[in-house]
Amino acid sequence: MKAIVYDHPGDESVLKLGEAPDPKPGPDQLLIKVITAGINRADLMQREGRYPPPPGASDILGLECAGEVAEVGANVKGWHPGDRAMCLIPGGGYAGLAAVHFGSAIQIPKTLSDEEAGGIPEVYLTAFLNLFLIGELTKGGVALVHGGGSGVGTAAIQMLKEFGARSIVTAGSDEKCDQCLKFGADVAINYNSGPFMPKVKEATGGRGVDVVLDIVGIPYLEQNLDSLVRGGRLILVSLMKGARGEVDLSKVQRNHLRIIGSTLRSRPVEEKAAIVSNFLRQFGAALEAGRIRPPIYRTVPLAEAAQAHRMMQRSEHFGKIILRVA
Amino acid sequence: MKAIVYDHPGDESVLKLGEAPDPKPGPDQLLIKVITAGINRADLMQREGRYPPPPGASDILGLECAGEVAEVGANVKGWHPGDRAMCLIPGGGYAGLAAVHFGSAIQIPKTLSDEEAGGIPEVYLTAFLNLFLIGELTKGGVALVHGGGSGVGTAAIQMLKEFGARSIVTAGSDEKCDQCLKFGADVAINYNSGPFMPKVKEATGGRGVDVVLDIVGIPYLEQNLDSLVRGGRLILVSLMKGARGEVDLSKVQRNHLRIIGSTLRSRPVEEKAAIVSNFLRQFGAALEAGRIRPPIYRTVPLAEAAQAHRMMQRSEHFGKIILRVA
Repeated sequence: MKAIVYDHPGDESVLKLGEAPDPKPGPDQLLIKVITAGINRADLMQREGRYPPPPGASDILGLECAGEVAEVGANVKGWHPGDRAMCLIPGGGYAGLAAVHFGSAIQIPKTLSDEEAGGIPEVYLTAFLNLFLIGELTKGGVALVHGGGSGVGTAAIQMLKEFGARSIVTAGSDEKCDQCLKFGADVAINYNSGPFMPKVKEATGGRGVDVVLDIVGIPYLEQNLDSLVRGGRLILVSLMKGARGEVDLSKVQRNHLRIIGSTLRSRPVEEKAAIVSNFLRQFGAALEAGRIRPPIYRTVPLAEAAQAHRMMQRSEHFGKIILRVA
Repeated sequence: MKAIVYDHPGDESVLKLGEAPDPKPGPDQLLIKVITAGINRADLMQREGRYPPPPGASDILGLECAGEVAEVGANVKGWHPGDRAMCLIPGGGYAGLAAVHFGSAIQIPKTLSDEEAGGIPEVYLTAFLNLFLIGELTKGGVALVHGGGSGVGTAAIQMLKEFGARSIVTAGSDEKCDQCLKFGADVAINYNSGPFMPKVKEATGGRGVDVVLDIVGIPYLEQNLDSLVRGGRLILVSLMKGARGEVDLSKVQRNHLRIIGSTLRSRPVEEKAAIVSNFLRQFGAALEAGRIRPPIYRTVPLAEAAQAHRMMQRSEHFGKIILRVA
């Protein structure tokens, strides 16, 4: 099969269109003929050699894809060749074929294009897991989401609105803040115009937020803790700007805060299946009705994956950058 | 009423037996004629001016007491004058009378002496809240409890055994470790004989523990995080040796850890009532049967509160130091 391959870690110029062996689906898997694949920032880290795939996963980049079922494993029920599927995968999206555990695959509703479907699993399931299952957000609650214009950020904005919670997002420019607001965010804060915490407090009448979805790490740690209401949850999904630094535990103790680490990719397939079915129970109808769908910033041919990485690296996008594989 | 009072914060020599106005119980309160009161390390911090009582609480020391109901507030059902009660209080135990919200009072089973009863509420409810409600320990799980010979530590050892979970405790001498083991701890580690983390790993076959109940703070932070199993919970109950210092969030993220701050004293009475009733549901029968009862290190007359503080300060005790008030 065709696939994006690279000989050694490095910048986006190492990526090239090449060939890789076809994956052999196991009895619990589907073989997917990939049509589109979402680009995620984690792919850039993996390409640089800083985010190795978990044991057993494909070493090809790509954490989500959409396509058509080509083969159905012996133990898999409810799927048939030709079905449209969008899939959460621990790797292997940037390729013509992908083997996927059945619990990580979702039927694509008619309302969604292949481009949209390829940009759903990783970001919507990440936002869902962390805001609702781990963050235990309740209706009427408030979440602070960093990177409001990112894939996870836009997914969070939509789900919070659909669920009935408020969203406060940060983004790196006034223009992106405007885009977030138009997309449904309740409040958008330009993180390049001063500390965000006082603005979060102002936007909540001094109360603070119930959950912070963080991707920044140490540089935001103190402000994140100060942004939380008593009993609030800081969920660390990524630590892009630093993992080691100072913490004031007295804030955590006094305000009954929770600092919670979370990743999606490394979880066992059974946990992922539970997250997927929970997601469909809570947001399946909204997905079906087309109320939940990712904004597509650009669709790029597979062969131009390097270009797509460069685009994401520059953070010029709002929403998803999608690879068209077939 | 008589009470232990002090004119200014300081060491234990500031404490003296004096007089204080009788508390006036509100409609949701019981007035307790105090017979015994437990000493807690937090009392020493309060005496030093480092742990002020929450708004509305008595400024007299003492977070737990046992005695006899003297008056019953108009809204209170199920209590009668003369009933024996042990009570969780945000202050006021070192005195002849205490006003207590009905939801923070527990009937004293016949199996328990006044000394034992006075040493139960603060420490057993602290251990219960943090190990089970917040720590979500399940049967067969493992908890690491620092300060195994303390009031909270001994309460934790008993409840973990009764519940069917393993306890690994730390203590400051081989002698205290032996006492902890005799008292029912599964493993006891002398924290003055090298890092505890490798011993925790060894005692769990490399797995780690599900919950750490910490009272130390920064100096133990890294070892505590390294002692946890994936998804494990570090509960910060106190930060005796430091609140501000370095953290490695990548450990938290990679292993899906949770750092959780917790206090009991500052919670609203409704929350405390829920904790109490939950505790009685899970451990009421064991309490009734006498399987759960604090080891009493020493009982000291109220007038000698300074002596009791000195004893606790030296950490010579195993279990509870109790004041006899009447």
